[in-house]
Amino acid sequence: MNVKQVARVVSVLLLIIAFFMLIPLSMALYNHEIEIVQSFLIPIAAIVLISALILFFARRNIKDTISTRDGFLLVTLSWVSSAFFSCLPFVFSKSIPHFADAFFETMSGYTTTGASILTNIEVLPKSILFWRSLTHWLGGMGIVVLTVAILPLLGVGGLQLIKAEAPGPSVDKITPKITETAKILWFIYVTITVAETLLLMVGGMSLYDAFTHTFGTLATGGFSPKNSSVGHYNSAYIDVVVTVFMIMAGTNFILYFKLITGRLSSIFGNTEYKVYIAIFLVAMTIIAINNYGNAYETLGRSFRFAGFQAASILTTTGFTTTNYAHWPVLSQVVLFLLMFIGGCSGSTGGGMKVIRIVTLFKQSWNELKYLIYPRGIFQVKISGDTIRKDILYPVSGFVFLYIFLLLLTTLVVATGGNDILTSLSTALVTLGNIGPGFGKISPGGNYAFYQDYIKWYLSFIMMTGRLEIYTVIILLTPKFWKR
Amino acid sequence: MNVKQVARVVSVLLLIIAFFMLIPLSMALYNHEIEIVQSFLIPIAAIVLISALILFFARRNIKDTISTRDGFLLVTLSWVSSAFFSCLPFVFSKSIPHFADAFFETMSGYTTTGASILTNIEVLPKSILFWRSLTHWLGGMGIVVLTVAILPLLGVGGLQLIKAEAPGPSVDKITPKITETAKILWFIYVTITVAETLLLMVGGMSLYDAFTHTFGTLATGGFSPKNSSVGHYNSAYIDVVVTVFMIMAGTNFILYFKLITGRLSSIFGNTEYKVYIAIFLVAMTIIAINNYGNAYETLGRSFRFAGFQAASILTTTGFTTTNYAHWPVLSQVVLFLLMFIGGCSGSTGGGMKVIRIVTLFKQSWNELKYLIYPRGIFQVKISGDTIRKDILYPVSGFVFLYIFLLLLTTLVVATGGNDILTSLSTALVTLGNIGPGFGKISPGGNYAFYQDYIKWYLSFIMMTGRLEIYTVIILLTPKFWKR
Repeated sequence: MNVKQVARVVSVLLLIIAFFMLIPLSMALYNHEIEIVQSFLIPIAAIVLISALILFFARRNIKDTISTRDGFLLVTLSWVSSAFFSCLPFVFSKSIPHFADAFFETMSGYTTTGASILTNIEVLPKSILFWRSLTHWLGGMGIVVLTVAILPLLGVGGLQLIKAEAPGPSVDKITPKITETAKILWFIYVTITVAETLLLMVGGMSLYDAFTHTFGTLATGGFSPKNSSVGHYNSAYIDVVVTVFMIMAGTNFILYFKLITGRLSSIFGNTEYKVYIAIFLVAMTIIAINNYGNAYETLGRSFRFAGFQAASILTTTGFTTTNYAHWPVLSQVVLFLLMFIGGCSGSTGGGMKVIRIVTLFKQSWNELKYLIYPRGIFQVKISGDTIRKDILYPVSGFVFLYIFLLLLTTLVVATGGNDILTSLSTALVTLGNIGPGFGKISPGGNYAFYQDYIKWYLSFIMMTGRLEIYTVIILLTPKFWKR
Repeated sequence: MNVKQVARVVSVLLLIIAFFMLIPLSMALYNHEIEIVQSFLIPIAAIVLISALILFFARRNIKDTISTRDGFLLVTLSWVSSAFFSCLPFVFSKSIPHFADAFFETMSGYTTTGASILTNIEVLPKSILFWRSLTHWLGGMGIVVLTVAILPLLGVGGLQLIKAEAPGPSVDKITPKITETAKILWFIYVTITVAETLLLMVGGMSLYDAFTHTFGTLATGGFSPKNSSVGHYNSAYIDVVVTVFMIMAGTNFILYFKLITGRLSSIFGNTEYKVYIAIFLVAMTIIAINNYGNAYETLGRSFRFAGFQAASILTTTGFTTTNYAHWPVLSQVVLFLLMFIGGCSGSTGGGMKVIRIVTLFKQSWNELKYLIYPRGIFQVKISGDTIRKDILYPVSGFVFLYIFLLLLTTLVVATGGNDILTSLSTALVTLGNIGPGFGKISPGGNYAFYQDYIKWYLSFIMMTGRLEIYTVIILLTPKFWKR
């Protein structure tokens, strides 16, 4: 294990985070909030000092490479250390004085979950809330680069499925090729960010509100500086804009790369994308019709709220425009079922991912064919390509581990004295990085009431879900640490 | 497709059922309940007439064999036609006048689910309730023969896993070997039935009560002629006897075969059995400790109720000695999680089965090892034997289809205006053949309030779950019916 090299990369990452802390710091300076300026200055200073020491003492060796094993350590360590340093401003500024709360909130930000322990969001300083939303945006970008460029190389959870789709020729090692891919993704991410921000401003949002909500959308995060989330604006225009961009954020970013390079046909030939859109449309329609005449008097209004909430849950964003816990039960069950799915691979969305569900569905169907024709040869085809059979092992292993962690988390949350629906939906929305759930964590509620040990456990689960499970779980096996 | 041959086998099966109808008919005769005598006589006459016609016109041809495809049709048709004719006495005697209700109740009996639409059980005639319990016993026996001797030949859902364990040399065709295996299983089943009946009578039960509760236990069914189920007797002795026999009924019956032939060591070397017992002990302990001081004042009493309910849910029996919906939430969540597991393969228990969960768990763990040593070769071992890799496909396909049907059923139940917990737990306990659940179908409630279309759908789901999903679903594919 090349600890030095891992430490170097983490240091650089932390320096980037320190750099982004300068934005809320400037806002605090402008508003003469001295205490908050200090709250950002201390972690920035700490990061710079520690990173300088690491970069000085763990100097680069020409022969240094990062092995697969180092990769796993690097990814998890990046998320943990980022959350640690980034939660300090919340603690120092006394916005979230309790450390377990601040760490939970920050991990929820970086993992683009959007689960919050805040009971009254709007009383916090603007600079602090900006930083809170910015963790979404940084985490979302990190995830896209990770799932598109890095995890496939590590071979995690069948994400090799998208390897064939990666832009450019095949990528075999952690080479400059990844830097190239990352740059393109970064460009796409920034472009979409600017587009949504402008469109939201056209709808009457301030620059501040537009930026923070765009961060929450693009990362499929869900933090809003408003207590009643996007529902605060009560604007059909804003709802539609956010809905469209949530769906865009839950789309595989490689498709945008193809769009730029003019390969439009490959988007409509993409199985995952087609299924993803179909699920969204079906869910929206059921909810809209179910709510029509009950919660909403016009069909248009019913579709607006249904579309927003279906997109928000499917893409694992977690924004709300209403408290869906008051909807008719069928609509609630549809949202509950969407929580099992998630966005597309290579997007900022969480959950099990549409591609895995499609793959296992086709595989189960194949087994039926084998029962009828035991000597036949049947293959699983995705987007016109045949999937190698041995890729089905990690996919099925992932889904099984996901369900296992889901039920284990339900049990852990229940030890705090929480009912079945609250425990199960907390497990679903933290592991799937969604945010709001049902029961005590319905849109009206929040995560403040959980005991500290549950908050720490859920922080771990949000990270595990976000990093495709295997990446984190592997660090818990003794085998990993053996030479 | 050899329709004649299929019809012949179904006819013989129906004749056996008509034969067993003579028992409740005799009881009704003895009690001078003329109307009930008629209610049994009509279906018996109908079966005899129809079967005679079929056996006469579809005479056996020396060359007749049953193909794999015929096997699927045969199995499903057996369950549907058995439920149809067996529900007639309920309708004719006006005990359950509505046909959809009677069919649901009977399918619940044959599938050993134990979900009931009855609001007051004890007002029904004894002969009718005896017949209701007898459907469990017959269904349970049918399932053991099916899963041990027939389904492995059809290759359903990875049940080939237990093929290697089948008594005697390998079975390749539907040959007299199956008759032999079935006879041994029949002998074991009857022996255990007699043993439990006697033990319950020692505890003070009447012969009638002892028989009906034994039927419910051995089949992991759950129908009781008492409104408050086994709780009616309020006896520690009876609770312990039923608990032990429920656990025995959820055990692979092949292990009893080995016990008889003196291969004791292979029982304790059986991975599935060890995990099954471990799950039971852990669940019982958590529930007992959680309830101690709350619902129950002594630790002994707490363990008695916890053990009974954990065994009842894990084995998918569904008997109750208390309304667990009033227990502390952690205990409820433990029962909820047990609903995802089920009994052992080759037992009368339903659910996903312990063996499938063990297999996928080991498989997921292997994937972790591959991430650390990409060039390593790792195998899944169960009970000391290496599992062929391609057996993992049907196992994973089964579990995925199971989860898919679970969520689909949740949606269907929700269309009737039922909340998330009621809908989800109804799906869990019908697909898993358990019986009571949470929400409106907690031990205090029943299935009477569901709309007819939901009752029909749930009858279908109980059968699908019971017959290992693929057996039924395959009949819905156009491919199956093509030449």
